[in-house]
Amino acid sequence: MRIKLTIEYDGTAYAGWQFQRNGPSIQEEVERAIAHFAKSRCPVTGASRTDAGVHARGNVAHFDTQCPIPPDRWFLALNTRLPEDIRVVQSEEAPPDFHARFHARRKQYTYRFYTSPAERAIGRQYAWRLPREVDVPRMNAALRAVLGTHDFRCMMASGAQSKTTVREIYRADVKEDGNDIVFSIEGNGFLYNMVRILAGTLVYIGTGKLGEDALARAIEANNRLLLGPTAPARGLCLEWVSYEDAHHSD
Amino acid sequence: MRIKLTIEYDGTAYAGWQFQRNGPSIQEEVERAIAHFAKSRCPVTGASRTDAGVHARGNVAHFDTQCPIPPDRWFLALNTRLPEDIRVVQSEEAPPDFHARFHARRKQYTYRFYTSPAERAIGRQYAWRLPREVDVPRMNAALRAVLGTHDFRCMMASGAQSKTTVREIYRADVKEDGNDIVFSIEGNGFLYNMVRILAGTLVYIGTGKLGEDALARAIEANNRLLLGPTAPARGLCLEWVSYEDAHHSD
Repeated sequence: MRIKLTIEYDGTAYAGWQFQRNGPSIQEEVERAIAHFAKSRCPVTGASRTDAGVHARGNVAHFDTQCPIPPDRWFLALNTRLPEDIRVVQSEEAPPDFHARFHARRKQYTYRFYTSPAERAIGRQYAWRLPREVDVPRMNAALRAVLGTHDFRCMMASGAQSKTTVREIYRADVKEDGNDIVFSIEGNGFLYNMVRILAGTLVYIGTGKLGEDALARAIEANNRLLLGPTAPARGLCLEWVSYEDAHHSD
Repeated sequence: MRIKLTIEYDGTAYAGWQFQRNGPSIQEEVERAIAHFAKSRCPVTGASRTDAGVHARGNVAHFDTQCPIPPDRWFLALNTRLPEDIRVVQSEEAPPDFHARFHARRKQYTYRFYTSPAERAIGRQYAWRLPREVDVPRMNAALRAVLGTHDFRCMMASGAQSKTTVREIYRADVKEDGNDIVFSIEGNGFLYNMVRILAGTLVYIGTGKLGEDALARAIEANNRLLLGPTAPARGLCLEWVSYEDAHHSD
């Protein structure tokens, strides 16, 4: 039986979703918890292989098991064996051909900033501090360039590989949320480091270091050098992964 | 010269504000950072001696020094020497007779809850999970009993000592904040564990385990047994301490 899991995690203490030599991974922890009940190793496939320090409110994963735990009870069982910075929030039976990564149709990421002369202590793990105010309307105007289908090769970390670098972006905006500024983006997929490069570039646009047309120009010219820095992992969170056909959700 | 500090901290890793035998304290960390610059031990007095695991966005403290760092630069200096879960957010010169604890006129605490079948991973350090929905209007109706001046002896942890157990409460309410429920309370002071006993009692009132008049009856009868449990430390945060005469702020 194939089980689909929705997983929330605080990525601060992890080397990323995927098994790594240089530190514990979320995948490893989830596989260890499953093995406790399944009495054998069940490989887990995640929708997004989030990077070291990146968080998720709803990454999705699947695995196969013959263990008789009811599908909707797996989340309770696994949570008894997982560290408190990883929580399975939902579990359900999936069709035998369901694939968490290949069938994902739409994902939302958020990137959280705050403006302050000093770092924050409370919630420091979940946001990137900006020393100066940013111009939110200007950031939103710049973001219009990413909407729709584009070749986003310029926003892929060097060394990363991807069959195609074309992605469709359905929604992208920057909003104030209390004392924070939150950039959210929804698309059919994202290249390696793409959201963090976008976040870093938005800060440069919001402080005037880059023009409002920086994103448009970099996409047009396929040139990483026209963009800002890669924002740190701590501000990034994979909010959800959807398996519905994208155009139904709009 | 007397310096007044405003300090934010994530209390998760600490045994509390005050020096403790059983673990690191926030006071100790702040004193160590000051000593690095002042080249001598300067005792620090805090407005609130928050408990193990309790957070603060704005605890206030004072100390005396002859070190020539300008008062409004102390926060930058100290932050270079403090662990990242303690941040000084402001520093200023205070009158030589200013006392962070004795001169405090008004404090606000918040207590954060969330309702979910599973614990959360992100922000787990800052809120208490409730397994069942609570009736927020009922909690607000019950809170009316604490407004004004009362003897709150029934809400003091056993073993605690206080010259007087009479306190004045200026404001108390429960509000929804996204997926969270936040109880806030402002008063001229709080007894040891008082806000956590109030939070635990509000949950019992909100789920129907205690009547809407539970707070009124317990205050009237001076009886701890008429109240709910002490809520865990992680949900509690000292938001601010004010030195203005309370009635000016209303």
